[in-house]
This record gives sequence, structure tokens and C-alpha cells, in this order.
Amino acid sequence: MSSKSFLPPKRTLMGPGPSDVSERVLQAMARPTIGHLDPAFVGMMDDMKRLLQYAFQTNNALTMPVSAPGSAGMETCFVNLLEPGDKAIVCQNGVFGGRMKENVERCGATAIMVEDDWGKVVDPNKVEAALKAHPDAKLVAFVHAETSTGAQSDAKTLVELAHKHDCLTIVDAVTSLGGTPVLVDEWGIDAIYSGTQKCLSAPPGLSPVSFSERALDVIKQRKHKVQSWFLDLTLVMGYWGGGAKRAYHHTAPINSLYALHEALLMLEEEGLENAWQRHAQHHQALRAGLEAMGFNFVVAEQDRLPQLNAIYIPDGVDDAAVRSTLLQQHNLEIGAGLGALAGKVWRIGLMGSSCSMWHVEYCLTALDKVLSEMGARIKSGVAVDSAKAAFEQLKKAS
Amino acid sequence: MSSKSFLPPKRTLMGPGPSDVSERVLQAMARPTIGHLDPAFVGMMDDMKRLLQYAFQTNNALTMPVSAPGSAGMETCFVNLLEPGDKAIVCQNGVFGGRMKENVERCGATAIMVEDDWGKVVDPNKVEAALKAHPDAKLVAFVHAETSTGAQSDAKTLVELAHKHDCLTIVDAVTSLGGTPVLVDEWGIDAIYSGTQKCLSAPPGLSPVSFSERALDVIKQRKHKVQSWFLDLTLVMGYWGGGAKRAYHHTAPINSLYALHEALLMLEEEGLENAWQRHAQHHQALRAGLEAMGFNFVVAEQDRLPQLNAIYIPDGVDDAAVRSTLLQQHNLEIGAGLGALAGKVWRIGLMGSSCSMWHVEYCLTALDKVLSEMGARIKSGVAVDSAKAAFEQLKKAS
Repeated sequence: MSSKSFLPPKRTLMGPGPSDVSERVLQAMARPTIGHLDPAFVGMMDDMKRLLQYAFQTNNALTMPVSAPGSAGMETCFVNLLEPGDKAIVCQNGVFGGRMKENVERCGATAIMVEDDWGKVVDPNKVEAALKAHPDAKLVAFVHAETSTGAQSDAKTLVELAHKHDCLTIVDAVTSLGGTPVLVDEWGIDAIYSGTQKCLSAPPGLSPVSFSERALDVIKQRKHKVQSWFLDLTLVMGYWGGGAKRAYHHTAPINSLYALHEALLMLEEEGLENAWQRHAQHHQALRAGLEAMGFNFVVAEQDRLPQLNAIYIPDGVDDAAVRSTLLQQHNLEIGAGLGALAGKVWRIGLMGSSCSMWHVEYCLTALDKVLSEMGARIKSGVAVDSAKAAFEQLKKAS
Repeated sequence: MSSKSFLPPKRTLMGPGPSDVSERVLQAMARPTIGHLDPAFVGMMDDMKRLLQYAFQTNNALTMPVSAPGSAGMETCFVNLLEPGDKAIVCQNGVFGGRMKENVERCGATAIMVEDDWGKVVDPNKVEAALKAHPDAKLVAFVHAETSTGAQSDAKTLVELAHKHDCLTIVDAVTSLGGTPVLVDEWGIDAIYSGTQKCLSAPPGLSPVSFSERALDVIKQRKHKVQSWFLDLTLVMGYWGGGAKRAYHHTAPINSLYALHEALLMLEEEGLENAWQRHAQHHQALRAGLEAMGFNFVVAEQDRLPQLNAIYIPDGVDDAAVRSTLLQQHNLEIGAGLGALAGKVWRIGLMGSSCSMWHVEYCLTALDKVLSEMGARIKSGVAVDSAKAAFEQLKKAS
């Protein structure tokens, strides 16, 4: 067997992430590798921190990218804040709340589960009941934007509740950061993690995180060492903690950081509010198109994430065949259902660079064509015009 | 403060890693991002596995890159093989043995330390004594190629000893893989991890690992869940474990994997034996040049890693000033001393794409110039000719 260079096809990425990565970000990634202690690189790290603080809307000093994907960002939050014997209230309304539970238990802590149906938001009343029933809980963890369903929970209210009961908060903003408001300081979030491959549209592999002073105090007062050496913030801080003198901890993923820096720069150039508005408007356009075809959304209107559109697969339609045909014939990736929603829903992403009218029209056209050819009972030929009309109306109003 | 795109300087990387990344690998990294479950990507993963098996000289089915830097590869080995209450013999002859100890203890296990001086190899007699004194030890962990000193230990002998006493082995091959022989199957290594930014000359951020059947059996029979969800091989295997059906675990660092694939392809094209010989010959050339200038090596001749040359800083020479001048005036990065050797040694890497006569001559010339200008008592103007002569002689002999 002889190998050859891998030349990936050029896809249009409209699943739950990765989203399309722009040529500008890809070319930034291909710049010459330099050392992780090079003064030039350290200067870039300072600017990266400032850009991440902007994206998270925070002044938290401990704001940086973890050198591994979002799951490692999640783990960074839990292993640093929890110790054996602690109790954590974990809200689950999809796949990622379940992953949080796994993290809590692997820290030797107890997870008090607050469960809501998949596709619903986290219910503040249930969280309050759990806080009252467990006055010894140390923190409340929840997913702001559930990537498995497209539901957006009310982070502000949940954080307020947690603080009222003297609990810290861990927030999953993997899919929300850069797509809908994530106001770390205004909402008082204590620990938050995200990913690069969603609304930031950098390649996957890093996880931006931010920790409040309050969270940092808890970490400084730990009785046990953090169980992960790699994710131990007391050590990582020696490298990312600022100042001219950086202590070697691990070798940072240099080129991936170039890419993230460029992507964050693009977000700053556009402006956060404009990015949020862009996601909201294109969601309405896609929605108009999908509803015109006869699709139903999984999540109630007021709780929908604009950047992740979960829709029910029409009866009698072969899930895998449709997705495979979209990929093979149209180079279009949309997402399958995860966990309890596997086989029942599709997840259409409008994230970062994948959030444009070109994407909306391309997706609607391809979906219409493939479903029509398969004889699915949808209303064909109406989607794109509906999307355009909805978009024009929003543009006029704004 | 306004940001702009980060344009890194073009350095010549001759420190302990990252090494120079070729244009070919950088361009591979900049190819379009596709989904981590895309059939095209899954095909690349299969080829990646085969290439890693070649690099590691193993048929181990569980051979893959961990989605984070070498430190996370180390942690993957320890957290999967150790459980609370276990005992591990850890050999330390530099910085990275100390990191292994941290890993063992954070698993709730006990580390029995076997210590050798920095710059020496791991002493098999001491390891045997520890094995006899601790018949209940579960594994022996050691660093094959100590990046902090440039000493190469006898992995074959150490693994044999461990097996004789019914222990598993964890081997750090971060700096050796691709530069000197690493024969996983022939030596019977049970768990091994490496990095991408040393002799493979891909950007940092991934850690190739390989596990024997015997190691896998131990993992399958664990009593406790692996403490890290992100690094839990029983879960990661669902994604990397082969077969057409890949289960989502975490989002793989797509573009970093493109780069590693291309770098491994280059290694295959050159041939492992040729790569080992290239590192050995250029080491001799660099050595001839450095010795002609009057430098002394930290490690005894027979124990030296060709790809990492630790030399004593001449008396009265300002360590930081020399490295800073090399970087600012010659765009040349060489490594500082780490830990016990900080301020006492320089570490000159000849790794992967940074291992050529161009690099040897460039480094010797720059070092000669900077030291002479600073008035250091070295023999100037002789290094490059000595290096060339040594290299020619080796080429003739081979």
C-alpha cells in the first residue's frame, strides 16, 4: 500500500461544526512555525488574550485558549474547580450536559442532575429547587447553547440563581461564542469554555476559556492537586499568565494559535453585535425557507439558537441516504441527530463563515433537490424565495 | 489598541522543538477544513494509522495521535494504565521523568523513583533493584530520549527488565521518534507517546501514541473509570478504533492532522533507516564543529542523542544575551537549559527538517560570530571546516 498526500474535497460545512474556515484563516495557519517561547510569539499571545476577552466580553485576567478541543476545555473547568467529595448541580437537556456529569464523577465529586427534555431549555425553577435541596453544592454547570438540539438556555438567570445560593457556575459556550450574546462579566459567569470550530470559524483543536477572580480564588485554595497535570491551571498560568517571562509548561500548538488569532481578529473587525445580528438574520431566512418546505423545528421559537437549526426529518425519509447524497453530490455537510435525537433530526449550522445568504440558498436548494429526487413529500421550489423575502424584510427593518 | 494579523518572523529552529516545518507540511495544513466524520477524512485517518505504525515500527492496532501536545500523550498513558493504589517505578534523569512522577501521583498511585544524574542515562541496575524491592509494581516508566539533557537510555534493556518482573512499560519517545530507532514491537514496549514538533517536523499540538495488546487488556480490566474523560481510550477508540463506523467522541483537530499526515508521508518517502542515518551523520558534523570551537558535551559520547546536542556554556558567557542575539540578529533559535541545567547549557536541536548541513553550518557560523563579538574565549573560524570534513568522511564511509 502506498500513501499519497491527502487532498480533502472542498465541502460546504453546515453541520454542528466545524464550520467553513476562510482562506484568510487557513493562510494564517500556514505561516512559519516559530518557538513557543519566542518573544514574537509571546507578543501574539498577549494580543490573543485581549481578543478573547473581547469575544467573551470580560476583563478576566485568566482568559486563554486551552491547547486541545472543546472537550478538554470542559474538563479544564471541572478538574480545576472540583475536588473529591464536592457536589455539583449539573443541568442536562442534551448530549453535553451528560458529558458534564461524566466530568463531575471522574473528579470524585457527586453530580446532582437537573434534567429537561432534549430540545427544551434548562428550567430555572428546577435549578432553584435543586439549589434549595442541596445547600452544600459547590457549583452549577449548564450548557448555554446545546449543540445537540439547538436550544439556548437563559444563562443570565441561571447564573444569578447559582450566585444567590453561593454557588460557582460553569458554562458551556462552545456553540454560542461569537454567534449569540455571551456576556461573561455582565452575567457574572465564573468559568466558561468554548470551541474554535463553531461561530469563530477557526479549525478545531483549541478551547478558549475564561475564569473569574472568584473561580481563581477557589482554585488557589484547593486541598488536592488538580488530577490532570496537562490541564492544571496553576501550572498553565505560568505560561499564559502574562508578563514577559513565560515559563515552559507544554509546547503550545503554535500554528493553530495563528489561525485562532486571525479568526478573532475577523470577529473584532466585524464587531460582536454585528456578528450576532448576522446570525440572527440568516437564521430567520433559513427558517423561512425550511418552514416553506414544510419542516418543523425541534426547539420552540423563543429558545432557538440562530446558529444551530435542528429540524425533524420528514416521515419516511432515509436520514443517512439524504446526508450522504448531500455530501457526495453537493459537497454539503449537514449534521445528524445525536443521542436521543439520532435518526430523528438534522442539524443545520449557520456558524461564523458558514453564515451567509449564499449558504442559506445553497443549503435550501440542495436539500430541496435531494429530497425531491427521493420522492419525499415536501413543498418543493419555494424555499429560496421565502428565505430571500424574509431576509430582505429584516434588512429593511434593521 | 488595534490588532493586526500576526506575521511571524521566519526563524531557523534549532532548539529542543518545534523544529523547522517544511512548506510542504505547512501547505498541507492550510487545505480546506472538512468534517471529522466525513468519509474522506475517515479514509485519511486509516492511512495516518498505518503511517504511525511504520514510524513506531509496530503492528499495534491502538496507534493514533492524541488530539493535544506531547504532555497530553504522556497523561494518556498514565491515566489509562494506572488506577488509585497502584505502584509505578519511574526513572528520572531529567525534567520529563519528574513530569511522569507528577502524573503517577495525580492518578492516586505511588511513584517509586529511580534517579540518575541529569545528563546520564537510566541505570538498568538501579531499575532492577527497584523491581526486586517492589514486586507489586504495575509498570516501569522511563524517558527514552531526555529532551532536557540529550541522553538516550537503553529502551530495549529496560523493557526486558520490566517484563522479566511482570511489569508494563511506558516510554517517552517525544524526541526520539523519527530521529533514532524506536522499535516498539521488537523491544516489546507496552505504551509509548511522542510529539509532532521534534523529528517529525510537523507543527506542535498532537501526540502520537501506541499501546500493545497487553496494555489494552489492562485498560479493559480497569476497576475505576479513567479519570480523564477527554483522554479515556475506551471512548477515544470509538472514533480512532478503525472500521467505517466512527463514533463521535470529540472534534478532532482536522488541519493539524493534515499536517501530521504529510510529515509522516515525508518520513516514509525518506525511509526510517535513512532518517536515522541522516540524524547520526549531521550530529557528527555538528559535534566536530562544536568541539573544534572548544565546546564540551553534557552527555557521554555513547549515550548522546544525535538530534539534541546539550553543550556547556563557556565560563563568563551571558547565556540569555547570546540566545537573544542569535534570535534577533540571525533569526536562529537554540534551546536554553531546563531545570537543574538552566543557565549552564545550551541545547542545539538537529531534528527532522532542521537536520541538514545547511543548518549545521548556519548554526556554527552564527554561534561563532556572536560569541566572538562578545569576546568569549572560543576557537573562532574553525568550526564550519571541521564540520564539513567530518561530514565528508562519514559520507564516504557510508
